[in-house]
Amino acid sequence: MNDCYFMELALAEAYKGKGKTLPNPAVGAVVVREGRVVATGYHEAPGRPHAEAVALERAGDKAKGATLYVTLEPCNHYGRTPPCTEKIIASGVKRVVVGLRDPNPVASGGIERLRGAGIEVTVGVLKERCFELVEDFLTLVTCGRSFLHLKLASTLDGATADRDGRSKWITGGEARRLVHRLRSYHNAVMVGIGTVLADDPLLTVREFPVEKQPIAVVVDPSLKLPVNCRLVKERAAELVVVTAQESLLSYKASLLQDLGVRLLPVFGGEGRLDLEEALNGLKEEFSVYSLLCEGGARLAGSLLVQGLVDRLSLFYAPKALGGRDFVPIFGCESRSLEEAFNFWLFECGKVGSDALLKLYSRELEMLYRRL
Amino acid sequence: MNDCYFMELALAEAYKGKGKTLPNPAVGAVVVREGRVVATGYHEAPGRPHAEAVALERAGDKAKGATLYVTLEPCNHYGRTPPCTEKIIASGVKRVVVGLRDPNPVASGGIERLRGAGIEVTVGVLKERCFELVEDFLTLVTCGRSFLHLKLASTLDGATADRDGRSKWITGGEARRLVHRLRSYHNAVMVGIGTVLADDPLLTVREFPVEKQPIAVVVDPSLKLPVNCRLVKERAAELVVVTAQESLLSYKASLLQDLGVRLLPVFGGEGRLDLEEALNGLKEEFSVYSLLCEGGARLAGSLLVQGLVDRLSLFYAPKALGGRDFVPIFGCESRSLEEAFNFWLFECGKVGSDALLKLYSRELEMLYRRL
Repeated sequence: MNDCYFMELALAEAYKGKGKTLPNPAVGAVVVREGRVVATGYHEAPGRPHAEAVALERAGDKAKGATLYVTLEPCNHYGRTPPCTEKIIASGVKRVVVGLRDPNPVASGGIERLRGAGIEVTVGVLKERCFELVEDFLTLVTCGRSFLHLKLASTLDGATADRDGRSKWITGGEARRLVHRLRSYHNAVMVGIGTVLADDPLLTVREFPVEKQPIAVVVDPSLKLPVNCRLVKERAAELVVVTAQESLLSYKASLLQDLGVRLLPVFGGEGRLDLEEALNGLKEEFSVYSLLCEGGARLAGSLLVQGLVDRLSLFYAPKALGGRDFVPIFGCESRSLEEAFNFWLFECGKVGSDALLKLYSRELEMLYRRL
Repeated sequence: MNDCYFMELALAEAYKGKGKTLPNPAVGAVVVREGRVVATGYHEAPGRPHAEAVALERAGDKAKGATLYVTLEPCNHYGRTPPCTEKIIASGVKRVVVGLRDPNPVASGGIERLRGAGIEVTVGVLKERCFELVEDFLTLVTCGRSFLHLKLASTLDGATADRDGRSKWITGGEARRLVHRLRSYHNAVMVGIGTVLADDPLLTVREFPVEKQPIAVVVDPSLKLPVNCRLVKERAAELVVVTAQESLLSYKASLLQDLGVRLLPVFGGEGRLDLEEALNGLKEEFSVYSLLCEGGARLAGSLLVQGLVDRLSLFYAPKALGGRDFVPIFGCESRSLEEAFNFWLFECGKVGSDALLKLYSRELEMLYRRL
């Protein structure tokens, strides 16, 4: 089916902007005439033109009688830019293929507007992939808070580290490369203090060039962060430490602030920080609209219990440790099967020698079914 | 590619015999002339004609100039049936497409024989799926023992039951239906005594009709099997209980035998039974060449530690219990990451709302790479 082929191209365009457009969605568009691509476009950043506008501008007269492929329903309202629907109608395209409906009540109605103007509209081509593309935007719009993507690597039997705490290189090279790609799709990369103490990570995108590194966020209730860790030594200006309000008055707090580290105090103490407040603070004060959390088990467990995991990416290495004398995936109290935490399995596949399961919250599942 | 399409048909033919042909491999064949299927065939049971012979016989004169698709390399030796290679040469087919090479040193050499006779031979079409088809036969040939397929269902974080032992319906309906299909592909379905005491299972294929139910095997070192469990009441004649030698002289042993249950004594006691001896006994005395083991955790752990898991099928439900206060996947001592048990991730995909990871032993991986 040709529609899928051209929507793939529109998706590839859109992904060039993924992580850079928030709080706007990443969107891609392709103009096709007589089976040939005449123009492409994507949304680069907030305030910049929308993907459809870019592609139609580039297509110029060639848009007449053409088909426009766009990953998300064109907007129908006056925001920072005029409504895309009017530009599409004025361009003379004959048909519009939309990947996903826009759930944003302010911006939607685009499909009806186009149909009303006599344009043929097809909806839902590669819907799943177009949904994944704007997972962050959808969370912002429907939950009113930043998108939290929890990524963990485990053995088949759920060990994220062995009994001695060893966890490095559970998964293989391809999975690790994919993680760098995932990091680039988010405004921030977050870990718990335990992970910093164990691995001394940099949390940067390294496998390929990026214009701007995601912010590093460390959840550290009692400010155990060593001043000589690599994050402080090499990335102090890009580092935000989420800590308990009471830690703010400590000597360590002023020491870190003197080194240029920013602190975000939230309610609660050791193991009981209010992480929703942290997400809101990160959004309001640091424009962090999407976070990739890479563990450890304790932070993962807190996010799970506080209902903040919008997406879960679980890499399983083809190994087992046996028993349960190891660090589990979620460091929280166990529930009974009846009270289990539930997700929606969105996709699963091989990444090199490992498996990757992509899961969304039940809330995002319900949104998907509605769209 | 047409070759893939016709090999798919040959695979579908072969699967009609899966589980019924052992110790022979399940094989399917399709004869295609001018893009049309003129005959199909599969190997039904030991002593019955080979798939190629069936298909060529049915094709008759139409085999001349045709292409023969066969999932496994045609045999080149005089066994219970004359070599298929000679039949193929005599039939006048012009080309043979083979899914997988035969590792059996006695039967192999078929491809070379055909090429020597001037027939064009293509090898390796849908190799992965043709490998999976004969996983049991390959284990018999290369390891010299019955194929053990361990199937388990768990939460994302590795719980096969919660702290109260509840495990029923972890996975959804589609996964459970697939398990019945898997049962039908094996000579026996095996569980540990704990599973019988907890679930009182029948271990039959129920979701679709079968000519013959797989044998039920219960691993029960100290003969705790209740005489009023459903397996004894409804399937005594199809039930084999693997037990410790010393249990054979007990009153319970004679009671079970009087009810028609067969006992297989092996070396070892509670939690330390020699399961390789058990597999050999099941093969020699009960013609069990392939087993689907469905747990529980303790038996799974023993099989893992004794290196007897040839294939692991892990269903993950999109749920988490958190922590580690639950029944793990493998009930054995935990190892360090360096000494982890290693598998080969063969395939993974969605089954209804659950994920299924198919893994093979490293031994079968090495065989696959050689073929």
